[in-house]
Amino acid sequence: MGGRPSGRRGSALEHLFHPSSVAVIGASKTEGKIGHAILKNVLDSGYRGPVYPVNPKEEEILGLKCYPSVAAVPEPVGLAVVAVPAKAALTVVRECGEAGVPCLVVVTAGFREVGKEGLALEKDLVETCRRYGMTMVGPNCLGIMGTHTPLNASFSAGFPHRGDIAFLSQSGALCAAILDWSLERGIGFSKFVSLGNKAVLDELDFIRDAAEDDYSKVILGYIEDVKRGEEFVDEASRAARKKPVVIIKSGTSQAGAKAASSHTGALAGSDLAYDVAFRQAGIIRAATMEELFDYATAFATQPIPKGRRVAIVTNSGGPGIIATDQVEARGLTMAGFSKKTLEELRGVLPPAANIYNPVDVLGDATAEVYRNAFRLVLADPGVDAVVCLLTRPAGIDPAEVARGIIEERKRFPAKPVVAAFLGGENVREANEILEQAGLPSYEFPERAVMALSGLVRYGELMKRPPVGRGAVFDDVDRDKVREIFAAVKSKRRLVLLGSEAHRVAEAYGIPAAPIDLAVRVSEAVETADRLGYPVVLKVASPKITHKSDVGGVKVGLEDAAAVREGFLGILESVHRVLPQVPVEGVEVQKMMPGGTEFIVGVSRDVQFGPLVMFGLGGIWVNLIKDVSFRLAKGLTMDEIERMILETKANTLLRGYRGRPPLDAAAVAETIARVAQLVRDFPEISELDINPLVAYEKGVCALDVKMTIS
Amino acid sequence: MGGRPSGRRGSALEHLFHPSSVAVIGASKTEGKIGHAILKNVLDSGYRGPVYPVNPKEEEILGLKCYPSVAAVPEPVGLAVVAVPAKAALTVVRECGEAGVPCLVVVTAGFREVGKEGLALEKDLVETCRRYGMTMVGPNCLGIMGTHTPLNASFSAGFPHRGDIAFLSQSGALCAAILDWSLERGIGFSKFVSLGNKAVLDELDFIRDAAEDDYSKVILGYIEDVKRGEEFVDEASRAARKKPVVIIKSGTSQAGAKAASSHTGALAGSDLAYDVAFRQAGIIRAATMEELFDYATAFATQPIPKGRRVAIVTNSGGPGIIATDQVEARGLTMAGFSKKTLEELRGVLPPAANIYNPVDVLGDATAEVYRNAFRLVLADPGVDAVVCLLTRPAGIDPAEVARGIIEERKRFPAKPVVAAFLGGENVREANEILEQAGLPSYEFPERAVMALSGLVRYGELMKRPPVGRGAVFDDVDRDKVREIFAAVKSKRRLVLLGSEAHRVAEAYGIPAAPIDLAVRVSEAVETADRLGYPVVLKVASPKITHKSDVGGVKVGLEDAAAVREGFLGILESVHRVLPQVPVEGVEVQKMMPGGTEFIVGVSRDVQFGPLVMFGLGGIWVNLIKDVSFRLAKGLTMDEIERMILETKANTLLRGYRGRPPLDAAAVAETIARVAQLVRDFPEISELDINPLVAYEKGVCALDVKMTIS
Repeated sequence: MGGRPSGRRGSALEHLFHPSSVAVIGASKTEGKIGHAILKNVLDSGYRGPVYPVNPKEEEILGLKCYPSVAAVPEPVGLAVVAVPAKAALTVVRECGEAGVPCLVVVTAGFREVGKEGLALEKDLVETCRRYGMTMVGPNCLGIMGTHTPLNASFSAGFPHRGDIAFLSQSGALCAAILDWSLERGIGFSKFVSLGNKAVLDELDFIRDAAEDDYSKVILGYIEDVKRGEEFVDEASRAARKKPVVIIKSGTSQAGAKAASSHTGALAGSDLAYDVAFRQAGIIRAATMEELFDYATAFATQPIPKGRRVAIVTNSGGPGIIATDQVEARGLTMAGFSKKTLEELRGVLPPAANIYNPVDVLGDATAEVYRNAFRLVLADPGVDAVVCLLTRPAGIDPAEVARGIIEERKRFPAKPVVAAFLGGENVREANEILEQAGLPSYEFPERAVMALSGLVRYGELMKRPPVGRGAVFDDVDRDKVREIFAAVKSKRRLVLLGSEAHRVAEAYGIPAAPIDLAVRVSEAVETADRLGYPVVLKVASPKITHKSDVGGVKVGLEDAAAVREGFLGILESVHRVLPQVPVEGVEVQKMMPGGTEFIVGVSRDVQFGPLVMFGLGGIWVNLIKDVSFRLAKGLTMDEIERMILETKANTLLRGYRGRPPLDAAAVAETIARVAQLVRDFPEISELDINPLVAYEKGVCALDVKMTIS
Repeated sequence: MGGRPSGRRGSALEHLFHPSSVAVIGASKTEGKIGHAILKNVLDSGYRGPVYPVNPKEEEILGLKCYPSVAAVPEPVGLAVVAVPAKAALTVVRECGEAGVPCLVVVTAGFREVGKEGLALEKDLVETCRRYGMTMVGPNCLGIMGTHTPLNASFSAGFPHRGDIAFLSQSGALCAAILDWSLERGIGFSKFVSLGNKAVLDELDFIRDAAEDDYSKVILGYIEDVKRGEEFVDEASRAARKKPVVIIKSGTSQAGAKAASSHTGALAGSDLAYDVAFRQAGIIRAATMEELFDYATAFATQPIPKGRRVAIVTNSGGPGIIATDQVEARGLTMAGFSKKTLEELRGVLPPAANIYNPVDVLGDATAEVYRNAFRLVLADPGVDAVVCLLTRPAGIDPAEVARGIIEERKRFPAKPVVAAFLGGENVREANEILEQAGLPSYEFPERAVMALSGLVRYGELMKRPPVGRGAVFDDVDRDKVREIFAAVKSKRRLVLLGSEAHRVAEAYGIPAAPIDLAVRVSEAVETADRLGYPVVLKVASPKITHKSDVGGVKVGLEDAAAVREGFLGILESVHRVLPQVPVEGVEVQKMMPGGTEFIVGVSRDVQFGPLVMFGLGGIWVNLIKDVSFRLAKGLTMDEIERMILETKANTLLRGYRGRPPLDAAAVAETIARVAQLVRDFPEISELDINPLVAYEKGVCALDVKMTIS
C-alpha cells in the first residue's frame, strides 16, 4: 500500500480506500471550516495510519504536527485530501505529484461547474494527475468514506454505520441526505463516495471497485450522467453479474436534463438511451429516491428468488388485496399452492380464513396461527418469495409474529421474505425485530412488493447471457462499404442515394429491392429491362425528402414505354415544383410484392453510441410509435428476440388474425446485420429501413435511407 | 335530533353522527370483549349524551345502569351499536325497530362475508331496517367515529385527532392502520367510518354526508367496490365539486379482484370502468396507500392552485433535478419566471446560484437567502405553486428556513406550497414547524411533487362543466328502434342483422351505408339497382361471425349480373362450408368510398352501465388498442372532445402527414348519438361500429354489430 500506482485508470482504488497515510492539505484550526471538518473526520473515523495536516500558516492542528507543504511531510503520503481554494489547487496537486502521492480527493469547488475558466482549470488538474500518474476523486465533492478501513476522508457531518452497501453519488447534497436517512434507519454502508465533477475517477471506476470488494454486497448510485457510455455497458454488466447495481439516474425530463446541465455541466444523453443501456447492463433502475432506498434494503438483506411466484400472508383483507394488485402491477405472479399446502393450511386455519393466495389468517388469528400459515406457504415449492402483511391485531402480539417469521424463514434461507406491518407505534417493536434479523419491513404493502420486484427483475436479468460481442456475420464486405462512403464523400454529399444505400445494405447481406441510378432515359429502360418489370421510379436527390409530394415517384411501370414516360414525367414535375434543387437522376427499383411493413432504424446517442430500433413500419411509425430499442453494441440474437417480443409488430410477425406467420428469423437477422454495420462504421449517423417488408419466407428492404458524417 | 328519520335513504346521517343518546347492545363487563371496548370508547370519547349499556345478564357496566333490552331503556335511543353474535342480531335489530331507534351500527360479523347463509341473514337484517325505517352501518364493521361530536361508536383501539378529513373504508383493518398512522403523524380527522358489508349505508351515503358537513374539508376513502354504480358518478361528482374526494380502489388486478370477492363478497366492476367513472366524477384516484396519505395531507392543508406551473426552490442540485423530473412525469410544467423575478433573484443570490427554475440557492446559502428566493418566486404571477427543497445544510438552520417559508407564504395564501426537507434528525424540528403551520413536508422530493399534482388535477377537473345529462339530440326515433327490437325478438334472435342494426343507427341519426336484406336473387338485384352500384353482398346470418372466411362476402359488384352471380355464389359457398347454419338471406350494401377507419363501440359494465369506446378502427383495433372510454351516462360534447384527444386516432382526424383533416365534428356527433342510443335502450348489451369511415366531410358506418338482451 502507498506505493506508486501503475498509472492504469482506476487501478489505485485499493490505495484510495486503504491508504498507508493521509495528508489533509488546507487543514484548518477553525471549526466550521471544511479543512477543519475533514481533518477531524479522518481522526474521528478511527483511521489507523499516520495523519498529516498541511497548512503553511499553522504549527499544529488538533494535536498533530502541521506541515507547510506536502513535500515537507517526512514519510510517504498515501492519500492527500485537498481542501485549498480553487486558485491554489493546481499548485498543491503538482506538489503532490512531485512528492509521489498516488491518490487525491479534491473537495475544492470552482471548476467545471462555474463555467469556462473553471473548466480550463479542471483540465489542467486532470493533465497534472495524468503526468504524475495520480488518481483523483472530485473536484467539487464531499469526499469519500470507507467503513471497513475505517476512513472518513470527507467533510460530511456524519459517518455511516458499517454495512454491505457501496454508495456513489453525483450529488454531494444527496450523499448527506442519504447518510442521514441511513443513520435514522440503521442501514449500513461499506463505502460512500461523492463523485463531484468526475474529472478523473467516475461512476464506472467505483462500480468496478465495489464489484470486486468483498465488503460490498450491493452497489447503489445516484447519477446525473454517465461519462464513458460505451465502456459503461460492458463494465457495469460485469459488475452487475457479481452483485446487484441499483441506480437512480435523474434528468429524465427535458426540463430535468436542463437543470442537470446547469448543475454539473453534464452532457446528458437522452433518457431512453439510459433506460436501454441500464437494462442491457443488468442495472436495476430506481424511479424515485424512495425506490432506491427500498431496493437497497431488500438487496442488502434478501436472496435473489428463483422465480416470480409470490405468496402473500396477511391477517386482514384490504392490505392483502392491495398487495395482490401490486404483484400484478409489478409484473410478478401470484403463486398457486400445492394440494398438500392447501390441505395443511386448512388444518391450521379457521374455516372462514382464505387458504388461497393471498392467505388471510383473519384478524383474530394468534401469532401461532400466523406462524403456521407462513411456514406452510414458505415451504411450498411453487412459492419463490413471500410477503408478510400485518395490521394492528386485537389478540395478537406483533413482536411474536415477527419472531415466528424469523424462526420459520431460517429453514428456507434461499427464498426472500419482505414484510409490511401496519400500525405505527403498535408495530414498532415488531418492525425492529424484523429489521435486526435482516428482514426488511416497509411502511406500506405496495412498497414491500415493489422492493421484491427488484429482486425478481435482477434474478431474471442474471439468467440472460452476459453482454457479448454481439451477433457477427462473416459474409460482409467492409471494403465495399468503405468504397461507397468514399465515393459519396467525394461528391461532397453526406446523404446517400437510395441506390448507394442499397449497395451498402447488400454488402452486409441485408436483402433489399434492386435499385440503380439512371441519369438518362435509355439507362432507365436498360435497368428496368435488366431488373424485370414492374418497376418503380424515384427521383434521385438527397435534398428531396418527400419525393411523392413533388411528383417524384411512379409505381407499377409495366414496360419500357411506361419507364420512358415516367422518367420524363418525374424530371418535368420535379423541375417545375423545385426548380432550384439539383437532381442526380432517377432511380429504377424492381417492384417487390407487397407485405407487412416493419421498420429497422438506427440513431446515435452521444453517450452510448448507436441505438437500433425495430417496430411497425410504413406510415404507422410516427403515429403508433410501436418500437423497441437496443444498443447496437454487444447486441446478441437472444436480445434481438426479446426486442421483437416487446413490440406489437411481433403479433403481426407471428401471424395476425389467421394470416400465416412471417419470417421472423429473417427480420431478426436483418436487425443483427444492421447492428453490425453501424458498429463497423461509426460514420453512419442515421439509418432507416422503412419499410422492411416481411414475407412468409424472407424479407426485403424497400427503402433504405442512410446519412454519414 | 333523535327523532324518527323520514325513511329516505341516508337522511339519517346527521342523527347517526350526532345521536341524542347511544345504546350499546351486547355491552360487556369483560375487558378484551368487543362489547366492552365499544362501551368504553363511547364513554372515553367524551360523548355528551346519555349512554345505555344493554345486556340481559348484567345490572351495571362501567358504572352505568345496564338494561336487559333496548325496549327496557326508559328514554328514546338515538343510536344503537349492536355487538351481539350474528344469530342474535336479527332479534336485537327488530327490537330496535320496535323501540323507534333511528340509527344502527352493527359491528357483528358472520353475514355476507361467510357465504350463503350469512347472506340470507344479512338480507333479513336489511329488510328489518327497511320495515322500521332504520338506517344502518355495517354489519361486519369496526364502527364509526366523529371527532366533532365527539363520539367513538366503534371498537377501535384509538380515537383520531380532531381535524378536517372525513375517512371511509371498506376494510376495518385499514381503518385501524390509517388511524395509527394519523396518530403518529399528528393528522386529524372529522369522521372515521368503517363501512363493513355496506348492507344499507354505503360509500355514497357517507361521501354525500361528508360533502355537506362543514367540519370536513377533504373526503378520503378506501373501497373495494362501488355499490350503486350509476348513481355514484352523479352524486360523487356533486360531492367532488364541494370538496376533494380522494379514493384508493383496490382489486385492480385480476388476482386482486378475486381476493376482493372472497373478502367482502364484492362484485367488482372492471378496473377500467372505475377509472373512467372516477375521472368523470372528478374523484382523485390514489394508486397506493402512500399516495392516499400524501394527497390527504396536501388537500387538507393547501389551496387548489390556479394552474400547473410549478416553481422549485432548493439548496442543492440533485434533489432539484429529481423534483424537476417528477414535475414532468406528473404532467405539471416548470414555471418560467418574469424578467422582474429573474433580476430580483440575481440581486439576492450569489453569482454561482441558478436563478432559473429550479432555483438553486446553493449549499452555503443562509436561511435569509433561501427566504428571499422563496419570496420572489412565490410572488411571480407565472407561478401557481412552489416546492421547497432543503438538504442538510452546513451553515443554515433548517428551522429558520421553515419559519421564513411560513412567514412569506402568508402573503400568497392562494398558492399551494409543499416541502421536502431531507436530513433525518437534522431537519426534524424544521419539519415539525412546517407541519404545525399547515405546510406538508414530505420525506422525498418526488412525493411532494406527486401530492401537488393531485391538487392541480383536482383544480383542472373542477374547471370542467359538471356531469350533465349528456348531449341529447331531438331528431331520434325511439319508436322505430323499439319496433326493430321487437321484430328481432319475435324472431327469437338477440343478434341483429346488419340491415336491422343499420336501421337502428339511422333512427338515431348515425350515418350508415344503406343496406337491405334480400331473400331472393331478384330482391338483391332490385335493391342494388335502387342503392346504386357498386355494391357489397354479405351473407345474413347472426351465427356467422367471420363472414369472409366462409366466402360470405363479395365486394365491388358493378352491375346486376355480378349481383346475381355473387348472391348465388355466397349461398353455395356458405352452404358448402357451414351446411347446418341457418341463413336469413344476403344483405346488399351500397359500397362507400374508402377512408380512414375508426371504431365506436359500447360495452356494458355491471356497476356503471354502458361504456362508450372510440379509437383506431379496422383490423388495428385489437393490435394497437388505441382506444379511450367514457361512461355513456352524462356524456357531454366537451367530454367527447377530450375522449377523442386521448387517442392517436385524433392525429389521423386532424390530418396526418399532410393529408386533409377529416370531419372530427361528425365523429364526435356519432359518439354522442351512440351514447344517447345506449342510454335510451338498456337492452343493447353490445354495439360495435367498425369501421366508422371518416371523410373530409361526414362519416359513414360501414359495419354495425348490435346485440340486445
